[in-house]
Amino acid sequence: MRIALDAMGGDNAPDAIIAGAIEALEHMDEDDEIVLVGPKESVMEHLSCPQRYRDRVHIVHAPDVISMDAAPVESLRKKPKSSISVLAKLAKQGEADAIISAGNTGACVVAFQMRMRNLPGVNRPGIAVVLPTFGGAITVCDVGANIACKPLNLYQYCVMAAIHTECVVGTKNPRVAIMSIGQEAAKGNEIVKKTRELIEADPSVNFVGNVEGRDIFNGVCDVVVCEGFVGNVILKLTEGLVEGLFKSIKHELMQETLRLAVKFKPIITRIYKKYDYTEYGGAPLLGVNGSAFICHGSSKEKTIRNAVLSAKKHHTFKINDKIIDALSRTPVGTSNGQPR
Amino acid sequence: MRIALDAMGGDNAPDAIIAGAIEALEHMDEDDEIVLVGPKESVMEHLSCPQRYRDRVHIVHAPDVISMDAAPVESLRKKPKSSISVLAKLAKQGEADAIISAGNTGACVVAFQMRMRNLPGVNRPGIAVVLPTFGGAITVCDVGANIACKPLNLYQYCVMAAIHTECVVGTKNPRVAIMSIGQEAAKGNEIVKKTRELIEADPSVNFVGNVEGRDIFNGVCDVVVCEGFVGNVILKLTEGLVEGLFKSIKHELMQETLRLAVKFKPIITRIYKKYDYTEYGGAPLLGVNGSAFICHGSSKEKTIRNAVLSAKKHHTFKINDKIIDALSRTPVGTSNGQPR
Repeated sequence: MRIALDAMGGDNAPDAIIAGAIEALEHMDEDDEIVLVGPKESVMEHLSCPQRYRDRVHIVHAPDVISMDAAPVESLRKKPKSSISVLAKLAKQGEADAIISAGNTGACVVAFQMRMRNLPGVNRPGIAVVLPTFGGAITVCDVGANIACKPLNLYQYCVMAAIHTECVVGTKNPRVAIMSIGQEAAKGNEIVKKTRELIEADPSVNFVGNVEGRDIFNGVCDVVVCEGFVGNVILKLTEGLVEGLFKSIKHELMQETLRLAVKFKPIITRIYKKYDYTEYGGAPLLGVNGSAFICHGSSKEKTIRNAVLSAKKHHTFKINDKIIDALSRTPVGTSNGQPR
Repeated sequence: MRIALDAMGGDNAPDAIIAGAIEALEHMDEDDEIVLVGPKESVMEHLSCPQRYRDRVHIVHAPDVISMDAAPVESLRKKPKSSISVLAKLAKQGEADAIISAGNTGACVVAFQMRMRNLPGVNRPGIAVVLPTFGGAITVCDVGANIACKPLNLYQYCVMAAIHTECVVGTKNPRVAIMSIGQEAAKGNEIVKKTRELIEADPSVNFVGNVEGRDIFNGVCDVVVCEGFVGNVILKLTEGLVEGLFKSIKHELMQETLRLAVKFKPIITRIYKKYDYTEYGGAPLLGVNGSAFICHGSSKEKTIRNAVLSAKKHHTFKINDKIIDALSRTPVGTSNGQPR
């Protein structure tokens, strides 16, 4: 298979992107190929590729770059030859089996949706992020692709994120929950209540009910669906809090003797590893007609490597076929956000 | 002043409530009084009051208790003599200057709003929680009173929460932000965008713009407003994550030698204290005509004591007069959620 990467996306591009992609090749099959998308000269300059991989690494020229904080729609219109736009075109034309970017998330969502279109039966794509927790991995969908969700969107996120979690994370028959403000069915806003009705109408979803914010980290579910606005707050809050707490621990340790600090370092490192979201690589934009992964802007080599491997799994496990199949069997309707 | 408490509210009632209230008396003025609301026999049985406070502690009989997970409206209708209902009546009739409950939050919100009514100019009350962070305390409003917010509600939360933060937390001219999915003004859903317009129309708000989930813990603002649904997720997620992380640290330490674990304990205790939300006691239901505080269901003695002291501050600083005054001067309209 061919996996294309936005060589210019993210704070550590192009070095981390290129290095991560090359590293991924070590764990892939011999006929797998990498396509680096970006200004050719610039990519060539940063490319250091072992001889044995030279035939499997290609560059597709894209002269422009969309900056991380640019307005998505406007920048895509102004820069039709940006690395994100070209990446999306490669996916559309079947020249890449999967695409990955750590660039401007909003621009990725717009470009990927526009070019790749939705899978049959899918109303709106959603970004599914896998978060490491003490209770195991949890998939949160959506985290920002769709900030004006309808109940049907949330229901479809249940179906799609469960398939992704089963195939890519490896959780058998994942327990699916909906984010609310109380565990009782009566609690929550209108969207939550209507979504619940849709989910309950589909016996194929292993639905465990409503969960609260605290439940994300206590292992009561494997998948949680929520509006993109809420999911985005969850994702960034978690990152900020974990980062802040470990900074705080480091600060306190610095006040102790060096000898004591040295002893605690491996303990802290061990704990930090459990919350290391780079382990899970990129987040798929579930529901588009292809395999599209979006990575955190701060992604380093390891995240990119893992994103490539996740994208390979996404393609190999034929997750999109499974989604189409699941949605074609569902008793829940697919148009206008209303049940059939 | 007279502060009334729901003696039966919360997981640790009535002992923690009674003990916390009595403890608060030590830090209050000589003419301050405590009223304990609950089944008289039961309260008497658990009451252990030093001789010197006997004249300042009263019991008001309320035979019924609303359980923590009961449906708010239904349970209030079925139990007009519940401790929460009687508490609200005391506030309404001027027999208590402030009321506090760690009971069923939904029932508190409904009962307090219904009996106390809103302050002149206030459209919808909101719960303001003060969270301790590495960057100092931050006030989040609303955390669950209003899950279908209008822009006007969010604007008024800015005004009210800023006054509360200045008077009760002690932050001078607090920096106010709105929770969104990106710092750029163009990012966010319709509510965020419209709220921003309202806030920007009022130069008296020290507005610092949009913040993301990660910004709650990095000290860029002192007050953040959001819809009750989002605020509730933020609050519970933070609690769950902090609790889980410290459990994880404890677990890792247990695998080390006892000697090392003992050395690490004071460091961890020091850090944990920084995130100890019990420090800030209860959360005011801002915007009702009186002083009403809602505490976490798991509140212990110390939280209740601090809630009583916060309620005293709320009353002493005449926060409600300040809110009425601020809203009467605002260029932003007060009806239908639309600007004037």
